[in-house]
Amino acid sequence: MSVTRIGVLTGGGDCPGLNAVIRAVVRKGVQSHGYEFTGFRDGWRGTLDGRTVKLDIPAVRGILPRGGTILGSSRTNPLKEPDGVRRIKETLAEHEVGPLIAIGGEDTLGVAARLHEEYGIPCVGVPKTIDNDLSATDYTFGFDTAVQIATEAIDRLHTTAESHMRVLVVEVMGRHAGWIALHSGLAGGANVILVPEQPFDVDQVCAWVTSRFEASYAPIVVTAEGAVPRDGEVVLKDSSRDSFGHVRLSGVGDWLAHEIERRTGHEARTTVLGHVQRGGTPSAFDRWLATRFGLHAVDAVREGDFGKMVALRGTDIVRVPLAEAVATLKTVDPARYAEAGVFFG
Amino acid sequence: MSVTRIGVLTGGGDCPGLNAVIRAVVRKGVQSHGYEFTGFRDGWRGTLDGRTVKLDIPAVRGILPRGGTILGSSRTNPLKEPDGVRRIKETLAEHEVGPLIAIGGEDTLGVAARLHEEYGIPCVGVPKTIDNDLSATDYTFGFDTAVQIATEAIDRLHTTAESHMRVLVVEVMGRHAGWIALHSGLAGGANVILVPEQPFDVDQVCAWVTSRFEASYAPIVVTAEGAVPRDGEVVLKDSSRDSFGHVRLSGVGDWLAHEIERRTGHEARTTVLGHVQRGGTPSAFDRWLATRFGLHAVDAVREGDFGKMVALRGTDIVRVPLAEAVATLKTVDPARYAEAGVFFG
Amino acid sequence: MSVTRIGVLTGGGDCPGLNAVIRAVVRKGVQSHGYEFTGFRDGWRGTLDGRTVKLDIPAVRGILPRGGTILGSSRTNPLKEPDGVRRIKETLAEHEVGPLIAIGGEDTLGVAARLHEEYGIPCVGVPKTIDNDLSATDYTFGFDTAVQIATEAIDRLHTTAESHMRVLVVEVMGRHAGWIALHSGLAGGANVILVPEQPFDVDQVCAWVTSRFEASYAPIVVTAEGAVPRDGEVVLKDSSRDSFGHVRLSGVGDWLAHEIERRTGHEARTTVLGHVQRGGTPSAFDRWLATRFGLHAVDAVREGDFGKMVALRGTDIVRVPLAEAVATLKTVDPARYAEAGVFFG
Amino acid sequence: MSVTRIGVLTGGGDCPGLNAVIRAVVRKGVQSHGYEFTGFRDGWRGTLDGRTVKLDIPAVRGILPRGGTILGSSRTNPLKEPDGVRRIKETLAEHEVGPLIAIGGEDTLGVAARLHEEYGIPCVGVPKTIDNDLSATDYTFGFDTAVQIATEAIDRLHTTAESHMRVLVVEVMGRHAGWIALHSGLAGGANVILVPEQPFDVDQVCAWVTSRFEASYAPIVVTAEGAVPRDGEVVLKDSSRDSFGHVRLSGVGDWLAHEIERRTGHEARTTVLGHVQRGGTPSAFDRWLATRFGLHAVDAVREGDFGKMVALRGTDIVRVPLAEAVATLKTVDPARYAEAGVFFG
Repeated sequence: MSVTRIGVLTGGGDCPGLNAVIRAVVRKGVQSHGYEFTGFRDGWRGTLDGRTVKLDIPAVRGILPRGGTILGSSRTNPLKEPDGVRRIKETLAEHEVGPLIAIGGEDTLGVAARLHEEYGIPCVGVPKTIDNDLSATDYTFGFDTAVQIATEAIDRLHTTAESHMRVLVVEVMGRHAGWIALHSGLAGGANVILVPEQPFDVDQVCAWVTSRFEASYAPIVVTAEGAVPRDGEVVLKDSSRDSFGHVRLSGVGDWLAHEIERRTGHEARTTVLGHVQRGGTPSAFDRWLATRFGLHAVDAVREGDFGKMVALRGTDIVRVPLAEAVATLKTVDPARYAEAGVFFG
Repeated sequence: MSVTRIGVLTGGGDCPGLNAVIRAVVRKGVQSHGYEFTGFRDGWRGTLDGRTVKLDIPAVRGILPRGGTILGSSRTNPLKEPDGVRRIKETLAEHEVGPLIAIGGEDTLGVAARLHEEYGIPCVGVPKTIDNDLSATDYTFGFDTAVQIATEAIDRLHTTAESHMRVLVVEVMGRHAGWIALHSGLAGGANVILVPEQPFDVDQVCAWVTSRFEASYAPIVVTAEGAVPRDGEVVLKDSSRDSFGHVRLSGVGDWLAHEIERRTGHEARTTVLGHVQRGGTPSAFDRWLATRFGLHAVDAVREGDFGKMVALRGTDIVRVPLAEAVATLKTVDPARYAEAGVFFG
Repeated sequence: MSVTRIGVLTGGGDCPGLNAVIRAVVRKGVQSHGYEFTGFRDGWRGTLDGRTVKLDIPAVRGILPRGGTILGSSRTNPLKEPDGVRRIKETLAEHEVGPLIAIGGEDTLGVAARLHEEYGIPCVGVPKTIDNDLSATDYTFGFDTAVQIATEAIDRLHTTAESHMRVLVVEVMGRHAGWIALHSGLAGGANVILVPEQPFDVDQVCAWVTSRFEASYAPIVVTAEGAVPRDGEVVLKDSSRDSFGHVRLSGVGDWLAHEIERRTGHEARTTVLGHVQRGGTPSAFDRWLATRFGLHAVDAVREGDFGKMVALRGTDIVRVPLAEAVATLKTVDPARYAEAGVFFG
Repeated sequence: MSVTRIGVLTGGGDCPGLNAVIRAVVRKGVQSHGYEFTGFRDGWRGTLDGRTVKLDIPAVRGILPRGGTILGSSRTNPLKEPDGVRRIKETLAEHEVGPLIAIGGEDTLGVAARLHEEYGIPCVGVPKTIDNDLSATDYTFGFDTAVQIATEAIDRLHTTAESHMRVLVVEVMGRHAGWIALHSGLAGGANVILVPEQPFDVDQVCAWVTSRFEASYAPIVVTAEGAVPRDGEVVLKDSSRDSFGHVRLSGVGDWLAHEIERRTGHEARTTVLGHVQRGGTPSAFDRWLATRFGLHAVDAVREGDFGKMVALRGTDIVRVPLAEAVATLKTVDPARYAEAGVFFG
């Protein structure tokens, strides 16, 4: 009887914990079941082009604490490539790969769902989104790390807020979901937290800024990069150009700092953490979660339970249908946002 | 109508996040409901002696990121003190305190449960145990911080394990429950993890040590302080004395290092993290959890839902009966421990 | 005989280590010599207005690891205030303060130099500049902390540089001196380092970016906020407006990212660390340096050696004339910058 | 004309920054001068056995932030091996290696000094000792990292010292020199600092402990592992056995905690950081220093200036004769230790 050979790939943006999943998958598969593994390079692209990486135990040694992914990643959608599915099937056949473990976000897992349902390719998904916006799982790995990094930055800004009289604006990740802003803002003791789900009123922000100054110190404003002002205010976004072709570079953080200065008369400064939030070593929580996701993904393969994604529910790892897992975005609901309101101003 | 005045106390051992709870309780209570707060010093002792701390918004400013507790703590059990309940009632009456919010572990909450049930004192509990061994909640704050600190230490030891040929033993907290050892061992990539729940076989440990050397590098052994050898081995514990009155200072970490050296011939060294794990600034996760516990404890008071403890279930804060919450210890079950076994050796 | 009472003040921008100096000054003065201390609030402003803070041993307890300054700070120059010197003398007389210990940068110490030389007020200076640009001392405290924070950010960005194909630009502090950029760029393994002392050629930067992509991964570009392009390129600076009155917010980091994208076709992203670099707990090195500066400043007072600034030379603390200390800016010389060139591209 | 091929080796114990030196040596040598490099495995042992590692630019990519050494290390002294010098010469000839760059401490550099002086092998030394006890250089890399790690541990212990009434003893590295204890004790705000250079009086330690309790909180005692009590007190050292063959495991930290408990009646707890201090990623300072040492070692080779060691003096890298560099141990002198005394008790 031939050995089972499993394909592994990572898709989408960077996220601390990807390597921890890969390592756990390989350790568990090889040691418990004698499986073999083939890594595909750069997400789905590697399944189209047949570019592979050998994945055995020496290959995954030492990668647990390392950010990024040893397999590389891409945003390639094979279903939009000519002959995509046929090329994937040929690649799998050529490398004698049976099931696939796909580690990625909405897009990557959406492809896995369709490959399984429509084309009969046995897939197991592992959820990955730094934004924590997948509704089928309590948490995704990478999120805790991003929140911790943002919180440490906010901690350092408190010093300046206390010693000087400057409003400090911190722009954190989150285009569509404000989880990083909400969690790091709460953990860091921010005085205003802005999320994409709740368009903000600049005058209200300025009122909080002013009341904070009256009560004690300078305020810290944490804003998700995707937060938007209410009522027709326009935030100039990345690299737009004005009618003279001049570059206007700015995100909501810079825009807010400017508006606060203009409206309240208080000096304001911006910190834009950017990719710092999604690189580097994962937190202990994310390593633990990523490792358990990897172990349980192999269990799913072992049991032939395809078309599923592993997910965290409480402290248990469960399985949910891939199709369902990627159906809706988990956004910050108004009740959870309101909970934080007691700390504003 | 008179204002509601709520008593707050923290009991038991140090745990990062206590101040975050106190801050959230006061912010929510004052700003949303106009409550007043009285802090009792040093846990239940303050309710016996009437030693109090004023808790208003300025008093809780800036304490979110600080370890320890501004209220102090103790292990005093007022039910074992002469006239304890009467003295508590007098103190509460004197300070015009109605409900109590008690933040603590098994012992502190056990007292709260009995004060509520048997003596009619309205209590709400907030769970606190660095060991994460309360069965009614997915997590307690402080645990994530301890795991992160232990994981960072293990990360640093890997360097030495790779460059030199020394077995490295790390003793982490956990007298009765091995959660810190399990999580930090998994997150740190330990080659052996020992927990109190599963008496260990020293020969098995040595076999893992030896196989690890053969496979690659020197091994890292993570042991809970409460781990014990199987089959009559005796670990010399803190400050015991031999028959000459000589001091023999050592915990299981030192003992293991010695046994591994003796049995395998490989040099071994020990790191004992000790109180480093329970002091200092809480992780972002712990601040978030502690803050939400504090907010929801005030909700419970508001609703008159006494005799309850706030608890984390998934991403929700729920309430459970105090009596039930402290009934059983949440230990590492064999299945969860077995999950980690694939990384041993 | 009356006791010696010494005034202490901190001036200029935030800098980790200020509190460590204050603590050391007070501990040494009180315990070794029985001195008393009066803190003046908000730099020289406090000496004008007579706003003071009691500085005894309880007042400095626990401040060693804390960023900022318990005395507050300002950029007030009393020599430019009406009647400034007379008001200072009145304040000192009123509070029975003899010598002054002034902790600050070029401006603060320049005032101290003139107060001592021209007006006979006995002053001892402690140098403080996060930019490390004082020529009389090997290092100033705060600098090591800033470099460490920037280096940790760069570390995290390497992950993304490896996994994705994006140029990552990091803007660090340094308007006139590039020490933070040079040290963090070297320590973080940056592929391009830009400093204010050496106007850069954007085409050369793009050539390095391109060659780095060819050799291995995406490049990391570290730029001091004060770095400027050669040959008439114009960088849009903070909050400028175009002819329609639209805000154009951007520093050199954003500008560079845009130019690199435009000229090389590679995507680029920017991280602006901002005040994160100057807040929060000081590194061990900075605490050690600040503490020793404080101890030696008291020695200078003890010996009546006024008009001097304490300075680090090798591992020794020495004294240099205040006037000389603030005379020239210590910038990155071409030889030191050239040393780093081997890592570019 | 043939290319210059340079040998590189790392000897002695682990030390963060070794890889940073190797990388800088290779980058500079290859890019500026077209040199080739051969790494010898496991210190001098590799020069005896001819075990080598290819050192080109891809080989050193990404190693800057990594602890340990990609070359491995050992304590082998080739001058004590039969035919050692002849075997080294044969190995060098076989691999066509001319000059050697030896990175190590007293022992490794002592060998380099003799190989150069007595046997005409051209050597350049790079100093490495985590204990900072080489007299010819202001600092050695690795030291700053160790001090930072110890300081962060002490920071966390302050919380417990404040909340509970326990003496906390921290044992840090330093068998013969107390620099790590002195710097981390000062930076961490320890209440007692013990170094090997000054035998301590246990009663004096207990007096400081007691006075600290009276003044404020519980004390933190930092002790170098090599600190010894005065007047015939005996500290039980690693793995000694009593007359029954029972193991008595303990260092000075455990011993002190026990004595303090016994003599003052205050509970005491010990943290033994162990190898955590010498593993893991180097601090920014250490990376900067190690990188500059590497660059300047290549300069020395280029100039044919053999028999020298690179050293830090102020902010300059200088060269000193190898023989002189290893002649004396740089210990904590009484004046520097006395400076810290103002913080004791």
